[in-house]
Amino acid sequence: MIMEAKTIKDGGVTSAQGFQAAGVACGIKARGEKDIALVVSDLPAEAAATFTTNLVKAAPVKVSMGHVRKGKIRGVLINSGCANACTGVGGIADAKAMVEHVAAEFKTRPREWLLCSTGRIGTRLPMIQIRKGVEKAAAKLSPDAGIDAAKAIMTTDTRRKEFAMRLKVDGRKVTIGGMAKGAGMIHPNMATMLCVITTDANIDKATLKTCVEEAVEHSFNRISVDGDTSTNDTVIVLANGASGTNMLKRFHPQFPLFKKTLTHVMRKLARMIVEDGEGITRVVDVVVKGAASDQDAKLAALAVAKSELIKTSWTGGDPNWGRIMAALGYSGARVREEMIEIYYDGLIAVTNGQPSKTPLVKLRKLVRKPKFTITIHLHAGMGEYGILTTDLTEEYVRINKGE
Amino acid sequence: MIMEAKTIKDGGVTSAQGFQAAGVACGIKARGEKDIALVVSDLPAEAAATFTTNLVKAAPVKVSMGHVRKGKIRGVLINSGCANACTGVGGIADAKAMVEHVAAEFKTRPREWLLCSTGRIGTRLPMIQIRKGVEKAAAKLSPDAGIDAAKAIMTTDTRRKEFAMRLKVDGRKVTIGGMAKGAGMIHPNMATMLCVITTDANIDKATLKTCVEEAVEHSFNRISVDGDTSTNDTVIVLANGASGTNMLKRFHPQFPLFKKTLTHVMRKLARMIVEDGEGITRVVDVVVKGAASDQDAKLAALAVAKSELIKTSWTGGDPNWGRIMAALGYSGARVREEMIEIYYDGLIAVTNGQPSKTPLVKLRKLVRKPKFTITIHLHAGMGEYGILTTDLTEEYVRINKGE
Repeated sequence: MIMEAKTIKDGGVTSAQGFQAAGVACGIKARGEKDIALVVSDLPAEAAATFTTNLVKAAPVKVSMGHVRKGKIRGVLINSGCANACTGVGGIADAKAMVEHVAAEFKTRPREWLLCSTGRIGTRLPMIQIRKGVEKAAAKLSPDAGIDAAKAIMTTDTRRKEFAMRLKVDGRKVTIGGMAKGAGMIHPNMATMLCVITTDANIDKATLKTCVEEAVEHSFNRISVDGDTSTNDTVIVLANGASGTNMLKRFHPQFPLFKKTLTHVMRKLARMIVEDGEGITRVVDVVVKGAASDQDAKLAALAVAKSELIKTSWTGGDPNWGRIMAALGYSGARVREEMIEIYYDGLIAVTNGQPSKTPLVKLRKLVRKPKFTITIHLHAGMGEYGILTTDLTEEYVRINKGE
Repeated sequence: MIMEAKTIKDGGVTSAQGFQAAGVACGIKARGEKDIALVVSDLPAEAAATFTTNLVKAAPVKVSMGHVRKGKIRGVLINSGCANACTGVGGIADAKAMVEHVAAEFKTRPREWLLCSTGRIGTRLPMIQIRKGVEKAAAKLSPDAGIDAAKAIMTTDTRRKEFAMRLKVDGRKVTIGGMAKGAGMIHPNMATMLCVITTDANIDKATLKTCVEEAVEHSFNRISVDGDTSTNDTVIVLANGASGTNMLKRFHPQFPLFKKTLTHVMRKLARMIVEDGEGITRVVDVVVKGAASDQDAKLAALAVAKSELIKTSWTGGDPNWGRIMAALGYSGARVREEMIEIYYDGLIAVTNGQPSKTPLVKLRKLVRKPKFTITIHLHAGMGEYGILTTDLTEEYVRINKGE
């Protein structure tokens, strides 16, 4: 990205000033893997968050939704290995007990804490282990332990996901950094994906909320691995103001840069999730242009990004644009077959709804690459939408069929 | 089915009086497999048909839609191996040439013929071979060759699909029989599925049309293999009146039986398509009850039937009801988590949105069966919907990733 913000090498959730983290194992996961993460701000922080749109929401989501609404937040407690979803009133009690326990550790009020859980649905949390885990994590808290926290939130992820950038506001350094997890059940609005971003920016709650919602819309809401929306999705941003700049209000000269950087950090983390998609071998940008409306463009892009037949054809390195034509036709978007153009990495495959003169061998070569872009022009208006998706492989089935 | 209609052993598209068929190889498919099917009525027949809802429609669909609208029909010409979709005006010309050629063979007008094509999208038909194939098929026409026609329409199907029943109307025998094809790209409203049903019933066009639309809604529109709707789907019913009964009007005492039998024949053929789904190992009836409306029930059933995560869990014999809860939550249906009940073949797995006391080992046993029913009760109203779906296997990916 060409802009006045710089990527921080090995940056993550503790890159911003005044944040500490920890990641420990408490026994929820078998084989002693890390399963409790803690992110704590030294100062009470402004917080904004977006949660799953699924009507079946996990207990930690319900608790966090209440806590983030008003007041400042001290930190985020996350466990992996158990989603605490579909666990009824008992699950809510467990979630509340978790925040009470971490609040007591730091001599704060429970409502100053946010909570995330990820893992299998329908199982109760092992509360004795979790209590011990919280104490252990609190003891290990460190500004250098962002990497441990990023490891502790992993489930089927094959690698940890961290990213941070630095910009200048009023001549001072402002850092935005975060960690994320997610590999399956990934779909817009959102997925089994968790993301915690910290920043030392000085920003008020309302402005932060708007920035976060817009950034999520252009990042985590534009990725799809398997079309399933999880019960636990959460993106949390904490801003503790430790940079000491003037308040980042809408009229502040560096406000657009801050927003752009926050969006970029989220897009980077979102892309990492897709690239680590379960069993995938291709990452594909699907871009729809010239739709009758943005909504139509979204319908068309989603139909392509979700089609099992299209996704399996990519797995085989087959530029099967016929399946794309079919998906556009049933997408619900207003399309006229004879107007459609389809490009693979800029190379035209379909013109006027029919095969172009591009040799099939050239298209095949493109679809064999691990990353490519499919651009669809509907020639029906000005609507645009883009989404990042993957192929569908035998390995995806193998990962998800087991218990 | 307990009713006054009987299944005809080895029955098919030529079981009804006054119908002949043929299935021949003309060289569209490699390896000399049959690829041209012809179904002809000795008398001009009333016809009704439903076609794909995909906005990208294949040329034969466009031609057939025009021909079926009014007037009587003499027969149906079908080719497999090439879909004649996304082929522009050239494809339309090819489709018209096909019906002109078959019409000339039988000294009839072109608009008395319907046309179907199935196979890969975006390729032009080899017209020289097709002309020869039509002539060959016309020469081989026979009341015993329904089986050849059923073979000639297969693409990735592993077996042919035929079914017929006989009922009594005014003391005379009336037969309804048909053939179908389809294994992939199967999804409501409809799929790469073709179905031709013939009957010697004496029925007028308008009444037949209503019967066919209702029967399709309860059969072919309630199956899903992979969520993709094809460009070529067609269900055609021809009624030539050869049984010599009184007209089957709405007030005829045997009209309800006729309608029920037609629906049953379609349901049977639809189930055969699902059972032959590409690479599948499980056939699952998903039934939603107690939804706030029928539309809500449909949304909920479709979300479950389409979820890649749920379908892969079945492949592994895993009764992963947590993924079903998640799908219900994002389905768009009005659900309240704490009211949801989920049953596997009548065995309760989820009650009040939480795990029941049914031992997991019992549920596992059920999900290992090749066929089972998942019943979801939302306790929100009277809405109901059922859909037949399959699991998602490594084999499905393997079949569809190749060219």
